[in-house]
Amino acid sequence: MKEFFKVTDLKKVLEYTSDFPRVKTEDVPLPEATGRVLAADIFSEVDLPDFMRSTMDGYAISASSTFGASEANPAYLTIRGSVSMGESPAFSVGPGEAAKISTGGMLPDGTDSVVMIEHTETIDKITIEVYRSVAPGQNVLEKGEDISMGAVLVSDGKRLRAQETGLLAAFGQETVRVYKKPVIGIISTGDEIVPIDETPAPGQIRDINMYTLSDLVKNAGAEPATFGIVRDDFDDLFEKCTLALEKADMVLISGGSSVGTRDFTIQVLAALPDAQILVHGISISPGKPTILAKSHHHAIWGLPGHVVSAMVVFEVVVRPFIEQIGGLSEKHKKEFRPSALLSRNLSSALGRTDYIRVRVTEKDGILWAEPILGKSGLINTMVKADGLIEIGVNTEGMDKGTEVEVIPLY
Amino acid sequence: MKEFFKVTDLKKVLEYTSDFPRVKTEDVPLPEATGRVLAADIFSEVDLPDFMRSTMDGYAISASSTFGASEANPAYLTIRGSVSMGESPAFSVGPGEAAKISTGGMLPDGTDSVVMIEHTETIDKITIEVYRSVAPGQNVLEKGEDISMGAVLVSDGKRLRAQETGLLAAFGQETVRVYKKPVIGIISTGDEIVPIDETPAPGQIRDINMYTLSDLVKNAGAEPATFGIVRDDFDDLFEKCTLALEKADMVLISGGSSVGTRDFTIQVLAALPDAQILVHGISISPGKPTILAKSHHHAIWGLPGHVVSAMVVFEVVVRPFIEQIGGLSEKHKKEFRPSALLSRNLSSALGRTDYIRVRVTEKDGILWAEPILGKSGLINTMVKADGLIEIGVNTEGMDKGTEVEVIPLY
Repeated sequence: MKEFFKVTDLKKVLEYTSDFPRVKTEDVPLPEATGRVLAADIFSEVDLPDFMRSTMDGYAISASSTFGASEANPAYLTIRGSVSMGESPAFSVGPGEAAKISTGGMLPDGTDSVVMIEHTETIDKITIEVYRSVAPGQNVLEKGEDISMGAVLVSDGKRLRAQETGLLAAFGQETVRVYKKPVIGIISTGDEIVPIDETPAPGQIRDINMYTLSDLVKNAGAEPATFGIVRDDFDDLFEKCTLALEKADMVLISGGSSVGTRDFTIQVLAALPDAQILVHGISISPGKPTILAKSHHHAIWGLPGHVVSAMVVFEVVVRPFIEQIGGLSEKHKKEFRPSALLSRNLSSALGRTDYIRVRVTEKDGILWAEPILGKSGLINTMVKADGLIEIGVNTEGMDKGTEVEVIPLY
Repeated sequence: MKEFFKVTDLKKVLEYTSDFPRVKTEDVPLPEATGRVLAADIFSEVDLPDFMRSTMDGYAISASSTFGASEANPAYLTIRGSVSMGESPAFSVGPGEAAKISTGGMLPDGTDSVVMIEHTETIDKITIEVYRSVAPGQNVLEKGEDISMGAVLVSDGKRLRAQETGLLAAFGQETVRVYKKPVIGIISTGDEIVPIDETPAPGQIRDINMYTLSDLVKNAGAEPATFGIVRDDFDDLFEKCTLALEKADMVLISGGSSVGTRDFTIQVLAALPDAQILVHGISISPGKPTILAKSHHHAIWGLPGHVVSAMVVFEVVVRPFIEQIGGLSEKHKKEFRPSALLSRNLSSALGRTDYIRVRVTEKDGILWAEPILGKSGLINTMVKADGLIEIGVNTEGMDKGTEVEVIPLY
């Protein structure tokens, strides 16, 4: 009766990501584009700025008019006019002349720089003294200095942030082609699971995983589609899986930690059209009894029923698959992991990667990662946790004071 | 003509947060609660789990029935029955007896632990051999082990994550009382600014800040309300501000980096009902020409026009105010800042806090923060940046190789 998993190495599991195609693309209005993944390189069609702009309040001049100027020996310039904001100056400025200009104003012909108002003194209505020598290009944005015509503004596979949206706004890009949000079907299984609006009878518990997984899916930039709770029955699960595969780009079957459900899950996955069981067990803890199957081009996961295990597997394994089918490119992934010192010794088994829940606390300017020990069925341990730390497959444990990277749990 | 700001120290500016009241609360359905800030402590009304559950597949027993058992000297137990998932067992188990149980099953009366199926051998239909001694409580979740009745599930002022939502689901909490999303009014100003659907004439540029600020507002958990572009005109700006203050909990006036607009902004803010100018200039760079005013209980910000300056001021100063009025409690704020080594020397002026845009790169397992230098009008420098680093008010600069904390830009 002993049970053996032919567990797959974590690295090997992640190599399967490339087996699954990206979702289709769609055009969305710019204000809805943030957080979405760009689906094509965007090139600039003009220079930004497309005229020379002042970055200071002062006077637009030809820099050469100020060469040698100092407090002791100011340059005297004649005011030719004033630049109105948002207008192209109708006059030009010659040597020994200046034009009053505000930050953001367009430099008149004949000028190449701006002297700050703080470095000038008004002598009379048409004359100023300049106390500093200015270099060509000083206090201005040159035409094309931000982005030159033909440059790539933002590239395919990048998740758009406020600044990318702002850049696209600068170029008048009212809609943006992005990858669709992958739709992730979520099925809960298990005879002991009841919906949250029911009061569990003795022996029953409410469906937690549907909520945690839906939230994690949203957090990964995808769209959850929930398919309710399925009893431990082959036909019911098969039918629900088939329905989910029609509507979703990927399916997560959660719960079903009992022997019966686990057996059904693997049987149902194997019976799906064009089915391949890619992974049956992963060498991580918690999360070992995870199944990854493929039906046509869809990934279907059998996640462990324990809430902590399911969440850890999601963060460590499922998220990279969602990012892959959602179009996020490898080079654009930036994951920030703060360092902290381990607050106590931790042991671990060789041959598997351990994920330990930690609370992060600061004492005298030092960040400490405090392990939160507890069974993987206890959601409260995840509520207390700020992040996870990883103990590698070839490590037997870590000593107190070891510097560890924290994977934040947002 | 020299211009002096009576600049306010960054720390002092942040002390004003407590001057502004929190927004009202609302009830939202649980699936929409993630990312929202909880507005009241939630207590558990029952134990979780509220019955003793198995965490393994095996046999529920009284631990004492296995004391002394080993491979050489197994204990022999009689199978009394099998626990069905989701049901309360109708039988009890005595000494020397066992009940077949799956993960998640409810322990029958008379049992206090589970022996894993891997540590047993079936002898016949009603007898098993047990090779290991089991301790009371082993391989089970005790009643109330996750959360005991009366405990605080989640406390006021915490931003809900997947695990908090999951915990609330476990208790059948279908709706959750959260703080309303603060509504943040955004007004763009400046004669040179045109909407993104217009082609800028020479001397004009498109409105970038409205997009970057809207996205940053969303990112901070609030709701942007845009009020379009206002020309450099006292009456227009006053009228728009009044309208925004009626509809929003806080107002950001952006753009207006020209002298004219800056003058209007401060005049308009001073003229608002019950107005107080709290801050006129902050000792940070970029972002010095920032105004904070108060009208009744609303904060109104005059942000610098340069896009980088406006974004830095948002991250450093505005965000904490939004979090305050949005109910996020100080003790629940966890900001993760990875460490990196500075890739080059940086100089800074004493007496102000500098924020430097950095790209974060990894070489041989070491994270480097590479400063991106460039004028604060260049949005491209923010597109290249992964984060900001801070050079403190009492620091003249930092040497290459200094360990710095990166403030991530998401």
